[in-house]
Amino acid sequence: MELVHVRHLFKLDPAKCLPDGAVDRLVRSGTDGFIIGGSDGLQLDAVQGLFQDFASRGLPVFMEVSDEAMIMPGASHYLIPMVLNTTDVKWLLGAHHGIVKQYGDFIPWPHVLVEGYCILNPDAKAAQLAKANTELTESDVAAYASIAENMLRLPVFYVEYSGVFGDSRMLQAARDELVNTKLWYGGGIRTVAQAREMSAIAGVIIVGNILYEDFEQALETVSAVR
Amino acid sequence: MELVHVRHLFKLDPAKCLPDGAVDRLVRSGTDGFIIGGSDGLQLDAVQGLFQDFASRGLPVFMEVSDEAMIMPGASHYLIPMVLNTTDVKWLLGAHHGIVKQYGDFIPWPHVLVEGYCILNPDAKAAQLAKANTELTESDVAAYASIAENMLRLPVFYVEYSGVFGDSRMLQAARDELVNTKLWYGGGIRTVAQAREMSAIAGVIIVGNILYEDFEQALETVSAVR
Repeated sequence: MELVHVRHLFKLDPAKCLPDGAVDRLVRSGTDGFIIGGSDGLQLDAVQGLFQDFASRGLPVFMEVSDEAMIMPGASHYLIPMVLNTTDVKWLLGAHHGIVKQYGDFIPWPHVLVEGYCILNPDAKAAQLAKANTELTESDVAAYASIAENMLRLPVFYVEYSGVFGDSRMLQAARDELVNTKLWYGGGIRTVAQAREMSAIAGVIIVGNILYEDFEQALETVSAVR
Repeated sequence: MELVHVRHLFKLDPAKCLPDGAVDRLVRSGTDGFIIGGSDGLQLDAVQGLFQDFASRGLPVFMEVSDEAMIMPGASHYLIPMVLNTTDVKWLLGAHHGIVKQYGDFIPWPHVLVEGYCILNPDAKAAQLAKANTELTESDVAAYASIAENMLRLPVFYVEYSGVFGDSRMLQAARDELVNTKLWYGGGIRTVAQAREMSAIAGVIIVGNILYEDFEQALETVSAVR
């Protein structure tokens, strides 16, 4: 899976509604692709509907397997999150073990990317659900990035502020450790200026919530990487 | 680091004494190398003494970093265990995070191999210390092996029975999942027949305790892989 040219992704939440005509406009926005993902209570039909809307439009659609409903056959890209700063093995490998045990040989491994998540906003639902230790310094984040790069050789290190705009020094601390592992940033990007600030450091920026709050503003974030 | 031709390793415990003349005989035994490792209470001078005895003798010496005393500069090979079936994040990534944070840039990553451990003997000190969930079926072990191979792409999946001779069906279940990840087996190998049984399945067998119980018998286990 070629990630080198990916700079901007929209994150779509199957539990939320996009405005009319949004699919066409998103596909033509200049973004590099879409992540379908959400933390809880996902309905399989909503996931499938969203996938079908985007899958045939020529841009990569990444299914982020954070919920059983995301284990949908037929996608060409799957993302598997490992929460590196969790305090509960379930979010590092436990849930994964259950899925691998159950679905075994059906998992299309060449289409799977493992994301090493570092969740930094203590108030985020994702942080609470995943029991993340968010009390981290820059050296802590750097050490997780180094583990992703050197120890686990993960394709992606994902700094996640989920809902709030993050501290770019944390992102920079991660950036300084990474050579082969790509740095992804998500959280609170609502303006072009914010998109530009984070994309100057991260390889990929992910734009999510603003899609459902101010669609026009969301589309504009693409210009930060073009 | 070329592991392809490694089939047999002796595991040396810095807390235990080898008989007189043992170093020469071990080096000439036909083994492929040595692991220096132990679970607890290691003394830095004992570790260094053992390392110096073996390091200049032409065979690889792997320092298994399971204790602060093992973080000894100058070795050419380091093994970093991740206990895949632990119930405590400390043994998956927590301790590692502390070490990477503290030693950072001094870690010679190209000389580091990460071992995905699956500890299966509930009575072993290692299992208790690492809070391993040892109540595993063959499908559980297979799923951990698949995670090591496909998700984490680890160089080594280590089935550890630590002190007792294991169930070869568990080893076979792991074997069936592995292509690029090497399968290492350790635990209770005391005879050539046992060494042969496990080396028919595992890529590498590790012989430990018997070195300190019946040295001649330990030397003979090498013949199983020659």
